[in-house]
Amino acid sequence: MKLARKDILGIKELSVDEINLILDTAESFIEISTRDIKKVPTLRGKTVINLFYEPSTRTRTSFEIAAKRLSADAVNISASTSSVVKGETLIDTAMNLEAMNPDIIIMRHSAAGAPHILSGLIKQSIINAGDGAHEHPTQALLDMMTIREKKGKIEGLKVAIVGDIAHSRVARSNIYGLTKMGANVTVAGPATMMPRDIDKLGVRVCYHLEEAIKDVDIIMVLRIQLERQENNIFPSLREYSNYYCLNARNITLAKDDVLVMHPGPINRGVEIAPDIADGSHSIILDQVTNGVAIRMALLYLLTG
Amino acid sequence: MKLARKDILGIKELSVDEINLILDTAESFIEISTRDIKKVPTLRGKTVINLFYEPSTRTRTSFEIAAKRLSADAVNISASTSSVVKGETLIDTAMNLEAMNPDIIIMRHSAAGAPHILSGLIKQSIINAGDGAHEHPTQALLDMMTIREKKGKIEGLKVAIVGDIAHSRVARSNIYGLTKMGANVTVAGPATMMPRDIDKLGVRVCYHLEEAIKDVDIIMVLRIQLERQENNIFPSLREYSNYYCLNARNITLAKDDVLVMHPGPINRGVEIAPDIADGSHSIILDQVTNGVAIRMALLYLLTG
Amino acid sequence: MKLARKDILGIKELSVDEINLILDTAESFIEISTRDIKKVPTLRGKTVINLFYEPSTRTRTSFEIAAKRLSADAVNISASTSSVVKGETLIDTAMNLEAMNPDIIIMRHSAAGAPHILSGLIKQSIINAGDGAHEHPTQALLDMMTIREKKGKIEGLKVAIVGDIAHSRVARSNIYGLTKMGANVTVAGPATMMPRDIDKLGVRVCYHLEEAIKDVDIIMVLRIQLERQENNIFPSLREYSNYYCLNARNITLAKDDVLVMHPGPINRGVEIAPDIADGSHSIILDQVTNGVAIRMALLYLLTG
Repeated sequence: MKLARKDILGIKELSVDEINLILDTAESFIEISTRDIKKVPTLRGKTVINLFYEPSTRTRTSFEIAAKRLSADAVNISASTSSVVKGETLIDTAMNLEAMNPDIIIMRHSAAGAPHILSGLIKQSIINAGDGAHEHPTQALLDMMTIREKKGKIEGLKVAIVGDIAHSRVARSNIYGLTKMGANVTVAGPATMMPRDIDKLGVRVCYHLEEAIKDVDIIMVLRIQLERQENNIFPSLREYSNYYCLNARNITLAKDDVLVMHPGPINRGVEIAPDIADGSHSIILDQVTNGVAIRMALLYLLTG
Repeated sequence: MKLARKDILGIKELSVDEINLILDTAESFIEISTRDIKKVPTLRGKTVINLFYEPSTRTRTSFEIAAKRLSADAVNISASTSSVVKGETLIDTAMNLEAMNPDIIIMRHSAAGAPHILSGLIKQSIINAGDGAHEHPTQALLDMMTIREKKGKIEGLKVAIVGDIAHSRVARSNIYGLTKMGANVTVAGPATMMPRDIDKLGVRVCYHLEEAIKDVDIIMVLRIQLERQENNIFPSLREYSNYYCLNARNITLAKDDVLVMHPGPINRGVEIAPDIADGSHSIILDQVTNGVAIRMALLYLLTG
Repeated sequence: MKLARKDILGIKELSVDEINLILDTAESFIEISTRDIKKVPTLRGKTVINLFYEPSTRTRTSFEIAAKRLSADAVNISASTSSVVKGETLIDTAMNLEAMNPDIIIMRHSAAGAPHILSGLIKQSIINAGDGAHEHPTQALLDMMTIREKKGKIEGLKVAIVGDIAHSRVARSNIYGLTKMGANVTVAGPATMMPRDIDKLGVRVCYHLEEAIKDVDIIMVLRIQLERQENNIFPSLREYSNYYCLNARNITLAKDDVLVMHPGPINRGVEIAPDIADGSHSIILDQVTNGVAIRMALLYLLTG
């Protein structure tokens, strides 16, 4: 089966069949990264450009490793060393890259919708590696892959997503994906971090951590973006932590075999207690491992 | 035929035969970037270093893609993350790189003549990727390649180069190249942006855009370097734009089949109107595509 | 023979047999970098991560070239563009990288002991590329390789190390290595740059350059870190230079065939006179060449 799609812009557009195809393909790629020779010639002679307008370690590195394990050539462009400083528009930058005949452009941008704008203008495939507070589809795909791997299914699972729902592209992509795949999703966070009308996306809304995680199978803890503190979204880190930090005490409200996820980077002691991040329920590092496989799958499926 | 030359420092030194050899070789490489597998093993086991003391997206990326499509290993060094911050001299940096046995060092530097200084000291090939306001030979070569591709020849064509002639390495390299190849070159710009004695290079000098582009085959629009504004070279962007912006009105003075070129990045609405940059006369993105081929040709010819 | 060791954290831990194995292996790799096709398939499908928390040209480039000449995939992460800016701990960054299944993580960090902390937590090999003022083992290995290459042996040689001994990881690693290998090591520098109890490491301590280099076979000049000047370690550069700069006059005190080494980058005229750095006694660029070979050897031996 093939992915009949030029770009991966968001989870919102993907069908259940497409998500399953991506997860199945990723699963078949997992093994490559455990080999002694972690490389297959599948994408030899393909050019993959990582165009990152926001700093990133894990996502950029994950895509770069994914490309190289498939034998593609990876070229990194980060905004700080690019002609962005010379005032070129995003569209002109992208059109210029297009003219160099890459096969896939992976982009992260602080503006929601940036990759969607390029999608119609550029003939090559675009993978959204995070656009503002909008979507981060590869994160949601690796999250769903990890849940399916650990629980054997997604359908019927109770999932709580906890944190700054309003500003989280990870939350948004997971809400689209998990509800599509039949999970029961609860979002939780302070009222100032909860977008209006979020319930219209088919999720239950809570304002208390304890209520949200009661009897759930999965807790997805979101990263508190410390740089937003100045915007008066929340009164203080300590206060946020008092009410929303997942810790050894409140986690007992969830199912005994609850799994704890986090997209990283972690603020230890802010949104998640260190013993939970490192504890037996945590599958945070499995998410990272699966991230490489998901990205290999997308590079493979889009160059088909 | 071979290029009997260790370095590519400027167009000034190149003979017509050498320029033709480079353009012919680049033409034969164009096709590789359109293949499904965009890679040939020609430079396997060669090491290419991109040593950039000034920020760049397109030139660095173009060289990196060129190197990888020929199977060379490309190593990027940008001044901001290098021992430049530790106060090492340019010569010591270069001698150290030489000691690691690369095959080609591509360098961009803000000082005119920087690659020429290294040329005599370093046994490996050096390609000048822009030195101050002096030369940018690969840009001129890709420009000449694009003109030849679109017009079938360079000889006898009327070419206008418009903008800050005094501070443009693109202008200087193109003046050397185009006059050598038999084009009739006119340069145009405000008096404060016109170097003394520029007419001695064999070009006609104009101070009015309309006069310069009358009946020409090619208009090369230069980028206004906004960062120079503070130096009082021109009174205001708006004023520059009023007199020198290429737009739908003044372009009608040129030949009907005039071609519009720009080295990028574009300042839309400053030196070129958006509808001209994106319009049917524009071959700006063809220049970018040919840039990869020109750089492949040089890497090939210099390691040959 | 194999290297029965997961990591290269410092010279302190290495046995004489291990050092000899590394130098012998590096010697056999020297030839690859002089070939027309400078590449062997030995580490195809291996992933090497350069994790640099401090800026570096030569060490990072040397490791990257070493990896590529062995056909490994190299991924660069520099602190300035990484999630370090998002406040992630070093351990979390490393655990995340581990989860992407690299084979070797090369790291430079301003904190002494940083790679040692990770060593116990990470299953992949770690190579210390410099940790604070503690160790820089690959530098000492390439230094020992260069001495052995030029002098035929290390045992019995008289070596003077001159400069800011207290803050130099190069000095520390070389003291461990050279004394182990049977050299007679003298350290010299102003009292403010001399660590207490340094003589317990088996070296002779001098406070005068002339005394230190009398009749020596090797002078290792250390880089003065200009950024430390503000800490009042030394009164002025000129004064330092007056007493400790190696020049054409004082070098005559050493043996006639004395060799001069420097880890780079050089401060010309501060710790070493230009005519000495570039003169016939200098083997500074041989050190750089051997650096690639030493790093190839370590990548090879650790992935063995």
